[in-house]
Amino acid sequence: MTDERPLGLDGLEWRPEGVCVYTGDALALIGAVEEVLAGFARDWPAEHQSAPPLLPAGLLERYGYLTEFPHLVTLQASLDPAAREEDGRVLAPTGNALTPAACYHVYPRAADADLRAPRLFRVGGLCFRHESGCRPLARQRVFTMREIVCLGAPADVSAFLERARAAADRLLGGLGLRHEWQVATDPFFSAASPARLAQRIVPSKWEARAEGVAVCSLNHHRSFFAERHRVRAGGGPAASACLAFGVERVAYALVRRHGPDRARWERAAARLPAAG
Amino acid sequence: MTDERPLGLDGLEWRPEGVCVYTGDALALIGAVEEVLAGFARDWPAEHQSAPPLLPAGLLERYGYLTEFPHLVTLQASLDPAAREEDGRVLAPTGNALTPAACYHVYPRAADADLRAPRLFRVGGLCFRHESGCRPLARQRVFTMREIVCLGAPADVSAFLERARAAADRLLGGLGLRHEWQVATDPFFSAASPARLAQRIVPSKWEARAEGVAVCSLNHHRSFFAERHRVRAGGGPAASACLAFGVERVAYALVRRHGPDRARWERAAARLPAAG
Repeated sequence: MTDERPLGLDGLEWRPEGVCVYTGDALALIGAVEEVLAGFARDWPAEHQSAPPLLPAGLLERYGYLTEFPHLVTLQASLDPAAREEDGRVLAPTGNALTPAACYHVYPRAADADLRAPRLFRVGGLCFRHESGCRPLARQRVFTMREIVCLGAPADVSAFLERARAAADRLLGGLGLRHEWQVATDPFFSAASPARLAQRIVPSKWEARAEGVAVCSLNHHRSFFAERHRVRAGGGPAASACLAFGVERVAYALVRRHGPDRARWERAAARLPAAG
Repeated sequence: MTDERPLGLDGLEWRPEGVCVYTGDALALIGAVEEVLAGFARDWPAEHQSAPPLLPAGLLERYGYLTEFPHLVTLQASLDPAAREEDGRVLAPTGNALTPAACYHVYPRAADADLRAPRLFRVGGLCFRHESGCRPLARQRVFTMREIVCLGAPADVSAFLERARAAADRLLGGLGLRHEWQVATDPFFSAASPARLAQRIVPSKWEARAEGVAVCSLNHHRSFFAERHRVRAGGGPAASACLAFGVERVAYALVRRHGPDRARWERAAARLPAAG
């Protein structure tokens, strides 16, 4: 399924670390996609917050990420200056991980809330995953995630998922992309838990695939994050869900679909309402 | 000298990892400073490039960073999934470091060039330093650096330094900041090298300090980076220099100077030409 041909995009320089340096057209393309997604996010009455690149590794443990995605985990290490003279330089633990998903910075901030109405969040930032089989824009070890997150009563979260899917359909259609929604197989729950079986019965993650990559995903966490932070809604356990775009993936699909000529993907991006 | 009073800025949430989550006014403040610095950068006829958050740890070794700043180094580690079943999860080296300075992504791209005219670069991105004594905006373990870099013949680089200092004076003055340039004591060369002594005689780094923090620095690298990448200019060894702003530091100084009331720092930022 993977298209191995070079993208032919001017200013896209691949680095063996699993990231790109952008200049020229590639820099403009990333900027154009950011504007499109900022315009999309402004249509939601969402609280806007940033997602810093560091979080406590303990949070990943709490979310089962270290067990479920050990191959993707990116940790922060430092050198221990105190050990330098006698023992040579040694790695010192910092207790920090690099952020793997922007919305991990949303749930802890809502800890212990009892929500009367659903809350929507707009959150985005750099995400780090130690992927293998990396390719420019399509699969990088650092990429930019832009999300709309809903936290609230289960019925409100289900309604959000429907609205979010329809909105993503309009956005991707407006960009001239032809996408298909597919149930994703990523585990969201511990392998030791019966929840993993439940996921096979009731899908929890859908990916919109265009040009061979998942440009966005809809994730229905049910009570997974809310429970871990004791969030309640209307007197019962709360639920959550998110719609997450990969900026570089959208950029990739745009170039694959419309070609590397800047005028063509700029025209596709300009068809959408600009960020206000 | 350090002002320990809280900033009183709405939407600034400190995290023990050494970073902030921004909402509300804090998010707007960072955005306003980014716009001011983008407008500033557009006045220079510079090649624009991104600075990804990862680089090879070997590049830091080559630049003497591991020896000079061992306490600041931030490395990337992953878990070794292959070792998981028999040995438990273990840290695996990745060979990558987190970027400590945006311009480290400029010099390798110019390797082996023989420049007929000086080249200017505009580069920026997230930088990671394992600082101690962290405080919101003033000293973070992840911050945003925006730089103008000059690479060329020594005389051209010296001329750039003068222009850059005058331009920074105008920018900081326009923001209503009162700054002073100070010679910085950071070593730029290996302790084992006579170059360190030379630095004491001929300053290589000046910091513009306002409200108790260095909001930007002027760095005269002389042939340090150019030599390591075999860059020549007009038949002789090339030199380089950079003007580097810390986005969060400028934001910090604006709030300390004008107060946390959004209308006041917005007015100060609006006095400058907007990013076009």
